[in-house]
Amino acid sequence: MTVETETDVQDGPDEAFSKWYIDTVLKAELADYTAVRGSMVIRPYGYAIWELIQQYIDRELKATGHQNAYFPLLIPLSFIQKEAEHVEGFAPQLAVVTHGGGEELTEPLVVRPTSETIIYDMLSKWIESYRDLPVLLNQWANVLRWEIRTRPFLRTAEFLWQEGHTAHATFDEANEEARLILDLYVRFIEDELAIPVYQGRKTDSEKFAGGLITYTMESLMGDAKALQMGTSHNLGQNFSKAFDVTFLDREGKRDYPWSTSWAVTTRLIGALIMVHGDAKGLRLPPRVAPFQVVIVPIWRKDEDRAKVAPLVERVHAALVGAGVRVKSDWRDQVTPGFKFNDWELRGVPVRIEIGPRDVDGDEVVVARRDTKEKANVPVVGLVERVQSLLDAIQRNLFTEAASFVRAHTSIADTWDELRERVVDPGGFVAVNWCDSKECEAALAAEKATVRAIPLNEIESSPTGPCVCCGRPAQFRCVVARSY
Amino acid sequence: MTVETETDVQDGPDEAFSKWYIDTVLKAELADYTAVRGSMVIRPYGYAIWELIQQYIDRELKATGHQNAYFPLLIPLSFIQKEAEHVEGFAPQLAVVTHGGGEELTEPLVVRPTSETIIYDMLSKWIESYRDLPVLLNQWANVLRWEIRTRPFLRTAEFLWQEGHTAHATFDEANEEARLILDLYVRFIEDELAIPVYQGRKTDSEKFAGGLITYTMESLMGDAKALQMGTSHNLGQNFSKAFDVTFLDREGKRDYPWSTSWAVTTRLIGALIMVHGDAKGLRLPPRVAPFQVVIVPIWRKDEDRAKVAPLVERVHAALVGAGVRVKSDWRDQVTPGFKFNDWELRGVPVRIEIGPRDVDGDEVVVARRDTKEKANVPVVGLVERVQSLLDAIQRNLFTEAASFVRAHTSIADTWDELRERVVDPGGFVAVNWCDSKECEAALAAEKATVRAIPLNEIESSPTGPCVCCGRPAQFRCVVARSY
Repeated sequence: MTVETETDVQDGPDEAFSKWYIDTVLKAELADYTAVRGSMVIRPYGYAIWELIQQYIDRELKATGHQNAYFPLLIPLSFIQKEAEHVEGFAPQLAVVTHGGGEELTEPLVVRPTSETIIYDMLSKWIESYRDLPVLLNQWANVLRWEIRTRPFLRTAEFLWQEGHTAHATFDEANEEARLILDLYVRFIEDELAIPVYQGRKTDSEKFAGGLITYTMESLMGDAKALQMGTSHNLGQNFSKAFDVTFLDREGKRDYPWSTSWAVTTRLIGALIMVHGDAKGLRLPPRVAPFQVVIVPIWRKDEDRAKVAPLVERVHAALVGAGVRVKSDWRDQVTPGFKFNDWELRGVPVRIEIGPRDVDGDEVVVARRDTKEKANVPVVGLVERVQSLLDAIQRNLFTEAASFVRAHTSIADTWDELRERVVDPGGFVAVNWCDSKECEAALAAEKATVRAIPLNEIESSPTGPCVCCGRPAQFRCVVARSY
Repeated sequence: MTVETETDVQDGPDEAFSKWYIDTVLKAELADYTAVRGSMVIRPYGYAIWELIQQYIDRELKATGHQNAYFPLLIPLSFIQKEAEHVEGFAPQLAVVTHGGGEELTEPLVVRPTSETIIYDMLSKWIESYRDLPVLLNQWANVLRWEIRTRPFLRTAEFLWQEGHTAHATFDEANEEARLILDLYVRFIEDELAIPVYQGRKTDSEKFAGGLITYTMESLMGDAKALQMGTSHNLGQNFSKAFDVTFLDREGKRDYPWSTSWAVTTRLIGALIMVHGDAKGLRLPPRVAPFQVVIVPIWRKDEDRAKVAPLVERVHAALVGAGVRVKSDWRDQVTPGFKFNDWELRGVPVRIEIGPRDVDGDEVVVARRDTKEKANVPVVGLVERVQSLLDAIQRNLFTEAASFVRAHTSIADTWDELRERVVDPGGFVAVNWCDSKECEAALAAEKATVRAIPLNEIESSPTGPCVCCGRPAQFRCVVARSY
């Protein structure tokens, strides 16, 4: 009924990685396929990761003055059509409600693919003067974009996200906001997800449908393909004009506000899997691990169980008391070895084994998921050791991922070099680029795209002619194969 | 474009209350109408209340072993049709997606009105043996039920809720779960929302479409009409059978799990308004007030502003440090009097006024929203005074609401008494009831319904013949006019 796995795995050299990815998602019980094509269930273990992502982002957005709100799921089709580029970008992906309450609707409603239009319709009512600006809104919501090829977390018809929408008196303020959010996202992804990020802006053809400037974050997955981790858009006055949102400025002149929108989604969970995972399954960075420590009690006879229980409970309580997220696995129908594999698959950063002999020696066995190192650690001082170990694992995962990026970043000065390097080493290839439709098509034929133009002016200044056509380059940029 | 207000206000004696309700929702900026019929925007102030509701419920659900997950928004129409009563109940309220990605779908999808069907389809895959039970899931989501008459928070096509779904090995376990959740909800509504609740179960005609037993919580609004605050259903084996969910029990016998579902929604915000509000607007119980304290600095000249600022900041910081949610209103384009009214409208429990003379006297003015009492309070010890005041307000709002319920609860032994008492005093009327379709219709003609059968056997045992037809009564129950 539900297995899309077969069709999802792309043919060719990426097949093994794809299969590993899907297997890991399913076996670690992060998500599952459903009877609804393109929609997934996020299972409790996957959702717990999303909640940790939400907590951080929500706290940081509130700390920077943003307020949460909730706008309708269904949007009149005519709204989507008000902004010309917007409808062109989103029309092919819409799910359309034509009937409600047993009757055909006079105007079809679409399930939101994003909420700019319905929000700007409301802003036209709420904004009157400069005193009402800036408007700094955020919404945690589900959105739907009809997709043909789907893959859990990475690309599903329905997904969860936060979408920020802000309105400002000037271009500069809007642009500062878009950059502030980009920074916030980068900090989150690097510090919490332990994933290095390449920041930049998108070319015109890759930017948000209806926007002015799209800032992007790109990361390299374990197969050296790039993944867009999130975007922050300066929308200019496009939506203000389309929805006739105006304000009286300080001089009493009527103007259109400048606006932004930005989002990160459940896709970030896909990135976590693909960046840090290994043959045994997930390796979760401690800061977003639902369980940072799993305690596996070791016993055969009931008397051994009784012997280890007090120490297991004591260590458990001490860790909880120190704010560590910990799970004690008391299942009696599976062996300790099964449990080790199970929690390694699920990526728990630290495992503590406690058997009868450990009780005698007043020590425990501590195993790292990332390096697979094991050591005997005295119970005295264990909490501090675990805490510093969690910090070390968090750092190590970032360091490993950063080395991978370095090993998969290169420069190409000729078209042949570019063609070779997007395959070997793969990853990011820096090139000079003219930004023409023709060169873009040539790049697409190599299954690659321009991922980002560096924000730094020095980095983005061309150092030679376009790598593709040899005509003058507009900028230097980073090219990659991507999801 | 958007004003549904006119058609929403019911004609008749309830008109004034309805108008007050809508005015309060709009003026306090809790929600707003949108261009999409039946859908509202929850504005930041309203959403902040929802977040406080979410925090409590989410924490308590996790503490009782429930896990959050996320299931698809769109459900195949055929799923809804698998459980006979379920489809009968929900078919008239469905929004149907017929087109996706530019093409007509081979099978229409419905926007979830509730998620039993899609969840049971997954459980048929996940549950194999008694070891997989109980399954204790919860989801925070939006749902959609097409409605003709809508009213912000109380009845909207789309609304936000949490929906719990659990599966158990026995009827008793399922029923214990349904009751555990009912208790959890009642505790939340009484302790945090300060709203007294009447608990009971629904009659067969009022129970959940597809369920076995529906437990309900009913509260009285300011117009003495009842509002269903939330429900907890024992679903029996109905959905397990419809979706062929089975498990091997301890004896190796295959059986269908017994299940529950339960929900509270954004409707609770409507109840908060209607139970505690007064002519000046909202009166929020401190535990769910986005701001528990507002500080209004009083100044005319810039030198006065400079004089009060340090004390305002000191008091603000001290309150924040004590965990109080506080807002200092430094707006300079409106008068202190305007601010007083504004924050009274928004229901902030405590207002602190700080002017130049207060600085001299090292004291501040503290005003209660609930009783409108004002007092001078020394700065020394202010935080403790505010904290005990917040506790007192929380208690007082509950006490006031409980008095109202007592004054609007009566007994009717005859049909004439019943007809009179559902209007005057209104509220809950306890009667003996035969539970026949005919008597139910007679009651509906009086614009009243059976709200709940008491859970307590003594309370629910009939004390005489049916108040309507005079035939033997099945039970004693509580009748009311309701939303």
